[in-house]
Amino acid sequence: MTNRFAFIAGETGTWRIRSIAALAGSGLPAASALTCVPVDGASAPSPARGWRLDGLVSNVRYATRDEVVDLSARQEGLGRPQARLAALIPIAKSARWWGLAQDERRAIFEETSHHTAVGLEYLPAIARKLFHARDIGEPFDFLTWFEFAPEHEAAFDDLLARLRATAEWAYVEREVDIRLERI
Amino acid sequence: MTNRFAFIAGETGTWRIRSIAALAGSGLPAASALTCVPVDGASAPSPARGWRLDGLVSNVRYATRDEVVDLSARQEGLGRPQARLAALIPIAKSARWWGLAQDERRAIFEETSHHTAVGLEYLPAIARKLFHARDIGEPFDFLTWFEFAPEHEAAFDDLLARLRATAEWAYVEREVDIRLERI
Repeated sequence: MTNRFAFIAGETGTWRIRSIAALAGSGLPAASALTCVPVDGASAPSPARGWRLDGLVSNVRYATRDEVVDLSARQEGLGRPQARLAALIPIAKSARWWGLAQDERRAIFEETSHHTAVGLEYLPAIARKLFHARDIGEPFDFLTWFEFAPEHEAAFDDLLARLRATAEWAYVEREVDIRLERI
Repeated sequence: MTNRFAFIAGETGTWRIRSIAALAGSGLPAASALTCVPVDGASAPSPARGWRLDGLVSNVRYATRDEVVDLSARQEGLGRPQARLAALIPIAKSARWWGLAQDERRAIFEETSHHTAVGLEYLPAIARKLFHARDIGEPFDFLTWFEFAPEHEAAFDDLLARLRATAEWAYVEREVDIRLERI
Protein backbone atom coordinates (compact mmCIF):
# COMPACT_ATOMS: atom_id res chain seq x y z
CA MET A 1 0.00 0.00 0.00
CA THR A 2 1.40 3.37 -0.98
CA ASN A 3 1.99 6.21 1.49
CA ARG A 4 1.85 8.82 -1.29
CA PHE A 5 -1.35 10.71 -2.04
CA ALA A 6 -2.28 13.38 -4.57
CA PHE A 7 -4.82 16.14 -4.06
CA ILE A 8 -6.14 16.85 -7.54
CA ALA A 9 -8.16 20.00 -8.19
CA GLY A 10 -10.09 20.46 -11.41
CA GLU A 11 -13.59 20.53 -12.82
CA THR A 12 -14.82 17.37 -11.14
CA GLY A 13 -14.08 15.58 -7.88
CA THR A 14 -15.54 14.21 -4.65
CA TRP A 15 -15.38 17.55 -2.80
CA ARG A 16 -16.75 20.87 -4.08
CA ILE A 17 -14.32 23.74 -3.55
CA ARG A 18 -16.09 26.59 -1.71
CA SER A 19 -13.09 28.95 -1.49
CA ILE A 20 -9.32 29.21 -1.97
CA ALA A 21 -7.64 31.93 0.09
CA ALA A 22 -3.93 32.81 0.04
CA LEU A 23 -2.87 33.79 3.57
CA ALA A 24 0.88 34.06 2.97
CA GLY A 25 2.84 33.92 -0.27
CA SER A 26 1.23 33.05 -3.58
CA GLY A 27 -2.11 31.27 -3.75
CA LEU A 28 -3.43 28.48 -5.97
CA PRO A 29 -5.57 28.75 -9.12
CA ALA A 30 -9.33 28.57 -8.82
CA ALA A 31 -10.91 25.15 -9.35
CA SER A 32 -14.37 23.64 -8.91
CA ALA A 33 -13.71 20.36 -7.17
CA LEU A 34 -11.02 18.28 -5.50
CA THR A 35 -10.22 14.59 -5.06
CA CYS A 36 -7.57 12.82 -2.99
CA VAL A 37 -6.15 9.67 -4.60
CA PRO A 38 -3.38 7.25 -3.65
CA VAL A 39 -0.37 7.45 -6.01
CA ASP A 40 1.18 4.11 -6.89
CA GLY A 41 4.31 4.17 -9.04
CA ALA A 42 3.79 5.96 -12.33
CA SER A 43 -0.03 5.95 -12.16
CA ALA A 44 -0.05 9.64 -11.41
CA PRO A 45 -2.86 11.54 -13.12
CA SER A 46 -2.39 15.28 -13.57
CA PRO A 47 -5.43 17.39 -14.31
CA ALA A 48 -5.62 19.04 -17.74
CA ARG A 49 -6.94 22.16 -16.03
CA GLY A 50 -6.36 22.75 -12.34
CA TRP A 51 -3.53 21.71 -10.06
CA ARG A 52 -2.13 18.80 -8.13
CA LEU A 53 -0.33 18.63 -4.77
CA ASP A 54 1.33 15.44 -3.51
CA GLY A 55 2.19 14.42 0.04
CA LEU A 56 3.45 11.45 2.02
CA VAL A 57 2.04 9.85 5.15
CA SER A 58 4.98 9.35 7.49
CA ASN A 59 5.95 8.77 11.12
CA VAL A 60 5.38 11.38 13.84
CA ARG A 61 8.13 14.00 14.02
CA TYR A 62 7.47 15.87 17.30
CA ALA A 63 4.81 14.07 19.36
CA THR A 64 5.86 12.34 22.57
CA ARG A 65 4.34 9.05 23.69
CA ASP A 66 1.99 10.89 26.10
CA GLU A 67 0.80 13.12 23.28
CA VAL A 68 0.34 10.19 20.89
CA VAL A 69 -1.76 8.40 23.54
CA ASP A 70 -3.88 11.53 24.16
CA LEU A 71 -4.41 12.09 20.43
CA SER A 72 -5.31 8.46 19.76
CA ALA A 73 -7.78 8.38 22.65
CA ARG A 74 -9.64 11.50 21.51
CA GLN A 75 -9.43 11.69 17.72
CA GLU A 76 -11.90 10.25 15.22
CA GLY A 77 -11.10 9.13 11.70
CA LEU A 78 -11.87 10.68 8.33
CA GLY A 79 -15.08 9.86 6.47
CA ARG A 80 -17.61 10.44 9.28
CA PRO A 81 -21.04 10.99 7.62
CA GLN A 82 -21.74 14.17 9.63
CA ALA A 83 -18.35 15.66 8.63
CA ARG A 84 -19.65 17.25 5.42
CA LEU A 85 -17.11 20.07 5.41
CA ALA A 86 -13.36 19.86 4.90
CA ALA A 87 -10.31 22.06 4.60
CA LEU A 88 -6.98 21.51 2.87
CA ILE A 89 -4.24 23.79 4.20
CA PRO A 90 -0.89 23.60 2.39
CA ILE A 91 1.95 25.44 4.13
CA ALA A 92 5.65 26.01 3.51
CA LYS A 93 8.05 26.99 6.26
CA SER A 94 11.19 29.10 5.88
CA ALA A 95 14.75 27.91 5.36
CA ARG A 96 15.44 29.23 8.87
CA TRP A 97 12.93 26.72 10.31
CA TRP A 98 14.50 23.80 8.45
CA GLY A 99 17.97 24.86 9.57
CA LEU A 100 16.96 24.55 13.24
CA ALA A 101 17.99 21.47 15.22
CA GLN A 102 15.36 18.97 16.38
CA ASP A 103 15.21 20.29 19.97
CA GLU A 104 14.80 23.87 18.73
CA ARG A 105 11.94 22.94 16.37
CA ARG A 106 10.24 20.84 19.06
CA ALA A 107 10.51 23.70 21.58
CA ILE A 108 8.88 26.20 19.20
CA PHE A 109 6.27 23.67 18.00
CA GLU A 110 5.05 22.54 21.40
CA GLU A 111 6.61 24.11 24.50
CA THR A 112 6.17 27.64 23.06
CA SER A 113 3.33 27.32 20.54
CA HIS A 114 1.42 24.36 22.05
CA HIS A 115 0.54 23.07 18.58
CA THR A 116 -0.54 19.59 19.74
CA ALA A 117 -2.14 20.81 22.99
CA VAL A 118 -4.28 23.36 21.10
CA GLY A 119 -5.27 20.77 18.48
CA LEU A 120 -6.32 18.36 21.24
CA GLU A 121 -8.91 20.86 22.51
CA TYR A 122 -10.77 20.54 19.21
CA LEU A 123 -10.99 16.75 19.22
CA PRO A 124 -12.96 14.80 18.26
CA ALA A 125 -14.91 17.49 16.35
CA ILE A 126 -12.06 18.31 13.94
CA ALA A 127 -10.52 15.22 12.30
CA ARG A 128 -7.04 15.78 10.85
CA LYS A 129 -4.54 14.02 8.59
CA LEU A 130 -1.03 15.30 7.84
CA PHE A 131 0.92 14.75 4.61
CA HIS A 132 4.65 15.59 4.29
CA ALA A 133 5.70 17.20 1.01
CA ARG A 134 8.99 19.06 1.49
CA ASP A 135 11.35 16.16 0.77
CA ILE A 136 9.77 15.30 -2.59
CA GLY A 137 10.29 18.62 -4.31
CA GLU A 138 6.74 19.89 -3.84
CA PRO A 139 5.96 23.63 -3.55
CA PHE A 140 4.64 23.16 0.01
CA ASP A 141 6.20 21.43 3.04
CA PHE A 142 2.96 20.09 4.52
CA LEU A 143 -0.59 19.46 3.39
CA THR A 144 -3.05 19.14 6.24
CA TRP A 145 -6.55 17.80 5.62
CA PHE A 146 -9.36 18.48 8.09
CA GLU A 147 -12.96 17.17 8.22
CA PHE A 148 -15.75 18.48 10.45
CA ALA A 149 -19.50 18.95 10.67
CA PRO A 150 -20.97 22.31 9.57
CA GLU A 151 -21.76 23.24 13.20
CA HIS A 152 -18.05 22.98 14.04
CA GLU A 153 -16.76 25.34 11.34
CA ALA A 154 -16.62 28.27 13.78
CA ALA A 155 -14.55 26.14 16.17
CA PHE A 156 -12.27 25.22 13.27
CA ASP A 157 -11.76 28.90 12.42
CA ASP A 158 -10.96 29.52 16.08
CA LEU A 159 -8.36 26.70 16.05
CA LEU A 160 -6.69 28.18 12.96
CA ALA A 161 -6.66 31.69 14.43
CA ARG A 162 -4.94 30.40 17.57
CA LEU A 163 -2.30 28.46 15.62
CA ARG A 164 -1.65 31.37 13.26
CA ALA A 165 -0.96 33.62 16.28
CA THR A 166 1.82 31.34 17.60
CA ALA A 167 5.60 31.75 17.44
CA GLU A 168 5.66 28.70 15.13
CA TRP A 169 3.69 30.59 12.47
CA ALA A 170 6.45 33.23 12.21
CA TYR A 171 8.25 30.51 10.21
CA VAL A 172 5.33 29.94 7.78
CA GLU A 173 6.10 31.76 4.56
CA ARG A 174 3.38 30.34 2.34
CA GLU A 175 -0.11 29.26 3.38
CA VAL A 176 -3.28 28.62 1.40
CA ASP A 177 -6.65 27.86 3.02
CA ILE A 178 -8.98 25.76 0.84
CA ARG A 179 -12.50 25.09 2.10
CA LEU A 180 -14.59 22.24 0.74
CA GLU A 181 -17.97 20.56 0.97
CA ARG A 182 -18.71 16.90 0.31
CA ILE A 183 -20.60 16.40 -2.96
CA MET B 1 18.84 21.74 -6.94
CA THR B 2 17.41 18.34 -6.22
CA ASN B 3 17.68 16.64 -2.81
CA ARG B 4 17.20 13.18 -4.35
CA PHE B 5 20.18 10.99 -5.20
CA ALA B 6 20.53 7.53 -6.72
CA PHE B 7 23.26 5.02 -5.94
CA ILE B 8 23.62 3.01 -9.14
CA ALA B 9 25.55 -0.25 -9.10
CA GLY B 10 26.57 -1.97 -12.31
CA GLU B 11 29.54 -2.72 -14.50
CA THR B 12 31.00 0.78 -14.49
CA GLY B 13 31.08 3.65 -12.04
CA THR B 14 33.28 6.04 -10.08
CA TRP B 15 33.81 3.65 -7.16
CA ARG B 16 34.97 0.03 -7.45
CA ILE B 17 32.93 -2.32 -5.26
CA ARG B 18 35.28 -4.38 -3.06
CA SER B 19 32.59 -6.35 -1.18
CA ILE B 20 28.86 -6.57 -0.47
CA ALA B 21 27.95 -8.24 2.82
CA ALA B 22 24.42 -8.88 4.09
CA LEU B 23 24.40 -8.42 7.87
CA ALA B 24 20.65 -8.70 8.46
CA GLY B 25 17.89 -9.69 6.07
CA SER B 26 18.48 -10.18 2.37
CA GLY B 27 21.57 -8.77 0.63
CA LEU B 28 22.07 -7.06 -2.71
CA PRO B 29 23.29 -8.58 -5.99
CA ALA B 30 26.99 -8.49 -6.81
CA ALA B 31 28.17 -5.60 -8.98
CA SER B 32 31.54 -4.21 -10.07
CA ALA B 33 31.19 -0.49 -9.56
CA LEU B 34 28.95 2.20 -8.11
CA THR B 35 28.10 5.83 -8.87
CA CYS B 36 26.02 8.35 -6.96
CA VAL B 37 24.03 10.76 -9.16
CA PRO B 38 21.49 13.50 -8.46
CA VAL B 39 17.99 12.61 -9.66
CA ASP B 40 16.05 15.45 -11.23
CA GLY B 41 12.49 14.81 -12.30
CA ALA B 42 12.18 11.91 -14.72
CA SER B 43 15.91 11.77 -15.59
CA ALA B 44 16.33 8.60 -13.57
CA PRO B 45 18.64 6.04 -15.14
CA SER B 46 18.27 2.43 -14.04
CA PRO B 47 21.12 0.05 -14.75
CA ALA B 48 20.47 -2.76 -17.24
CA ARG B 49 22.36 -5.09 -14.93
CA GLY B 50 22.86 -4.25 -11.28
CA TRP B 51 20.70 -2.29 -8.88
CA ARG B 52 19.71 1.22 -7.84
CA LEU B 53 18.89 2.69 -4.44
CA ASP B 54 17.45 6.20 -4.02
CA GLY B 55 17.55 8.49 -1.01
CA LEU B 56 16.72 12.06 0.00
CA VAL B 57 18.83 14.62 1.80
CA SER B 58 16.61 16.09 4.51
CA ASN B 59 16.62 18.03 7.77
CA VAL B 60 18.06 16.57 11.00
CA ARG B 61 15.60 14.37 12.87
CA TYR B 62 17.23 13.81 16.29
CA ALA B 63 20.25 16.09 16.73
CA THR B 64 20.03 18.92 19.25
CA ARG B 65 21.63 22.33 18.62
CA ASP B 66 24.62 21.37 20.81
CA GLU B 67 25.11 18.20 18.79
CA VAL B 68 24.75 20.01 15.46
CA VAL B 69 27.39 22.53 16.58
CA ASP B 70 29.77 19.76 17.70
CA LEU B 71 29.29 17.84 14.45
CA SER B 72 29.78 20.92 12.27
CA ALA B 73 32.93 21.92 14.13
CA ARG B 74 34.58 18.52 13.77
CA GLN B 75 33.35 16.96 10.53
CA GLU B 76 34.98 17.25 7.11
CA GLY B 77 33.19 17.02 3.79
CA LEU B 78 33.09 14.31 1.15
CA GLY B 79 35.64 14.21 -1.66
CA ARG B 80 38.86 14.59 0.34
CA PRO B 81 41.73 13.29 -1.86
CA GLN B 82 43.13 11.05 0.90
CA ALA B 83 39.69 9.45 1.49
CA ARG B 84 40.15 6.74 -1.12
CA LEU B 85 37.86 4.23 0.60
CA ALA B 86 34.10 4.44 1.08
CA ALA B 87 31.21 2.43 2.45
CA LEU B 88 27.51 2.49 1.63
CA ILE B 89 25.37 1.01 4.39
CA PRO B 90 21.65 0.69 3.62
CA ILE B 91 19.49 -0.23 6.62
CA ALA B 92 15.80 -0.80 7.28
CA LYS B 93 14.29 -0.55 10.73
CA SER B 94 11.28 -2.49 12.02
CA ALA B 95 7.64 -1.40 12.10
CA ARG B 96 7.99 -1.29 15.89
CA TRP B 97 10.67 1.44 15.56
CA TRP B 98 8.50 3.54 13.25
CA GLY B 99 5.52 3.14 15.59
CA LEU B 100 7.47 4.74 18.45
CA ALA B 101 6.86 8.39 19.38
CA GLN B 102 9.57 11.01 18.76
CA ASP B 103 10.76 11.10 22.40
CA GLU B 104 11.01 7.30 22.50
CA ARG B 105 13.07 7.14 19.28
CA ARG B 106 15.32 9.98 20.42
CA ALA B 107 15.90 8.28 23.80
CA ILE B 108 16.95 5.01 22.16
CA PHE B 109 19.00 6.76 19.47
CA GLU B 110 21.03 9.00 21.75
CA GLU B 111 20.44 8.77 25.49
CA THR B 112 20.67 4.93 25.39
CA SER B 113 22.69 4.16 22.27
CA HIS B 114 24.81 7.36 22.00
CA HIS B 115 24.63 7.23 18.21
CA THR B 116 25.80 10.83 17.67
CA ALA B 117 28.29 10.82 20.54
CA VAL B 118 29.96 7.64 19.24
CA GLY B 119 30.07 9.00 15.69
CA LEU B 120 31.69 12.22 16.97
CA GLU B 121 34.65 10.22 18.31
CA TYR B 122 35.54 9.21 14.75
CA LEU B 123 35.55 12.73 13.31
CA PRO B 124 37.07 14.08 11.19
CA ALA B 125 38.57 10.77 9.96
CA ILE B 126 35.23 9.28 8.90
CA ALA B 127 33.12 11.62 6.73
CA ARG B 128 29.43 10.75 6.59
CA LYS B 129 26.31 11.68 4.62
CA LEU B 130 22.81 10.40 5.37
CA PHE B 131 20.03 9.81 2.83
CA HIS B 132 16.41 9.11 3.87
CA ALA B 133 14.59 6.47 1.83
CA ARG B 134 11.66 5.10 3.83
CA ASP B 135 9.03 7.63 2.76
CA ILE B 136 9.60 7.14 -0.98
CA GLY B 137 8.81 3.42 -1.13
CA GLU B 138 12.41 2.23 -1.22
CA PRO B 139 13.46 -1.16 0.21
CA PHE B 140 15.66 0.52 2.85
CA ASP B 141 14.88 3.31 5.33
CA PHE B 142 18.33 4.94 5.27
CA LEU B 143 21.41 4.92 3.07
CA THR B 144 24.53 6.14 4.82
CA TRP B 145 27.64 6.98 2.81
CA PHE B 146 31.06 7.11 4.50
CA GLU B 147 34.48 8.19 3.15
CA PHE B 148 37.85 7.64 4.86
CA ALA B 149 41.53 7.10 4.20
CA PRO B 150 42.82 3.49 4.07
CA GLU B 151 44.61 3.92 7.42
CA HIS B 152 41.24 4.66 9.08
CA GLU B 153 39.41 1.55 7.89
CA ALA B 154 40.10 -0.26 11.18
CA ALA B 155 38.63 2.70 13.09
CA PHE B 156 35.61 2.62 10.79
CA ASP B 157 35.10 -1.10 11.53
CA ASP B 158 35.34 -0.28 15.23
CA LEU B 159 32.69 2.47 14.86
CA LEU B 160 30.32 0.05 13.12
CA ALA B 161 30.88 -2.68 15.73
CA ARG B 162 30.02 -0.24 18.52
CA LEU B 163 26.85 1.00 16.78
CA ARG B 164 25.73 -2.54 15.94
CA ALA B 165 26.01 -3.50 19.63
CA THR B 166 23.58 -0.74 20.73
CA ALA B 167 19.92 -0.98 21.75
CA GLU B 168 19.06 1.00 18.60
CA TRP B 169 20.35 -1.84 16.40
CA ALA B 170 17.75 -4.23 17.88
CA TYR B 171 15.34 -2.35 15.59
CA VAL B 172 17.46 -2.87 12.45
CA GLU B 173 15.95 -5.70 10.44
CA ARG B 174 17.88 -5.35 7.21
CA GLU B 175 21.47 -4.15 6.80
CA VAL B 176 23.94 -4.45 3.94
CA ASP B 177 27.59 -3.35 4.19
CA ILE B 178 29.11 -2.32 0.84
CA ARG B 179 32.80 -1.41 0.74
CA LEU B 180 34.29 0.63 -2.08
CA GLU B 181 37.51 2.09 -3.40
CA ARG B 182 37.83 5.22 -5.52
CA ILE B 183 38.71 4.38 -9.15
